[in-house]
Amino acid sequence: MSSSSAVPAARPPIRDALVAAAFRLFLERGFEQTTVDDIVALAGVGRRSFFRYFPSKEDVVFPDHEGCLAEMTAFLAASGPEHEPVRRVCDAARLVLRMYAENPAFSVQRYRLTRQVPGLRAYELSVVWRYERALAEYLRGRFAGRPDGTLRADVIAAAVVAAHNNALRSWLRSDGVGDAGAAVDHALAYVHRTYARPADAQAVRSGAAGAGPGPDGDVVVLVSRRDAPLWRVVQELETVLDRS
Amino acid sequence: MSSSSAVPAARPPIRDALVAAAFRLFLERGFEQTTVDDIVALAGVGRRSFFRYFPSKEDVVFPDHEGCLAEMTAFLAASGPEHEPVRRVCDAARLVLRMYAENPAFSVQRYRLTRQVPGLRAYELSVVWRYERALAEYLRGRFAGRPDGTLRADVIAAAVVAAHNNALRSWLRSDGVGDAGAAVDHALAYVHRTYARPADAQAVRSGAAGAGPGPDGDVVVLVSRRDAPLWRVVQELETVLDRS
Repeated sequence: MSSSSAVPAARPPIRDALVAAAFRLFLERGFEQTTVDDIVALAGVGRRSFFRYFPSKEDVVFPDHEGCLAEMTAFLAASGPEHEPVRRVCDAARLVLRMYAENPAFSVQRYRLTRQVPGLRAYELSVVWRYERALAEYLRGRFAGRPDGTLRADVIAAAVVAAHNNALRSWLRSDGVGDAGAAVDHALAYVHRTYARPADAQAVRSGAAGAGPGPDGDVVVLVSRRDAPLWRVVQELETVLDRS
Repeated sequence: MSSSSAVPAARPPIRDALVAAAFRLFLERGFEQTTVDDIVALAGVGRRSFFRYFPSKEDVVFPDHEGCLAEMTAFLAASGPEHEPVRRVCDAARLVLRMYAENPAFSVQRYRLTRQVPGLRAYELSVVWRYERALAEYLRGRFAGRPDGTLRADVIAAAVVAAHNNALRSWLRSDGVGDAGAAVDHALAYVHRTYARPADAQAVRSGAAGAGPGPDGDVVVLVSRRDAPLWRVVQELETVLDRS
């Protein structure tokens, strides 16, 4: 794959040219050995054009995160009480995956570069932190006034980000081969299953109430001592239901 | 509180003097406006002494994280099959809390400084990431060969770090007043309750089997349709057990 074909489309042409030039130089010479002057010379534009689009050399490596963060923030702000909150943050995380999956070759190149350059790793951690804060702030609002509301919000946001990144990085390490969307869906389903509560899912609840018994619609009876630890009872339950 | 009294004890005297001088200057002039030369002049030592202890000006703000990371790594490496893995990573996270709680005044000062200086925030994120990776690597080892082993490891490590930091930061924001240990225990118990599995807890299991019924040792009977979603059944169960 050529580096120029690995640049995201549908962006201002100068911005695109700068990203393409930067990645070509980063891959040829290394990130540290490439200056902004080198990039603008190759792109055929002036130095001021670079800084119009990118505050620093690090930013050109992640040209789409600011836009994705803005999109995520708007998505969460547009939520209503009808949205089950854990489902909503999982859906918000999928916006990040979509950005990566839009251009697999570019995403894989960047992943390799980021792993080689400590400064880029630090930059990426700060971006991930901002996504996580956006999810946590939304959940804190939804859980406001509940016992342990901020604790649950922070933990669930971190779990969503970790699950998303587990699947995303597996896909990037495999050179962008395979279905990233299916892998991320699987990982997020694990988090959703863990944390979603029926009281937050009006739509889900009414759906469940309206559903008739399925083909396995028989009844399970579980007997437990009241003083058994909850995890023990749940494990018994999983065994009975054959879903562990 | 004076800045000199807020420095951790039981360290080499020169190292201590450098930390004390650095924090005094950071608080008086700001982090960016203080140079390494300023710090060594105030501490009365040479420039080479500074770099013997600290690779950079950022490192003097976090003088104990390297030691704590080493301690955590050793603690996890010393684990055996008798340690329930989620409990073990919660205990490992408590090592970080202990470091902060050893010197509340210093920790609160640093927290305020870190929130003001973006470079320190980035440094802190990279430290948090290293703790999280240490926990995740341990869990990946323990969950090796299981379905979704790396996914579960990464998500649980992130949940432990988020819970720990939720409690730690509340304590730091309240100027180090109150029982940080109890707050962190409460937060970690939430994560442990969510993720610990009886199959991983031989010691816990045998303890439960040997225990007689407690004062509330009566019996609970739960009846559920087999095709009900698991989260629904668990919620019913929580309601019955009065533990939601």
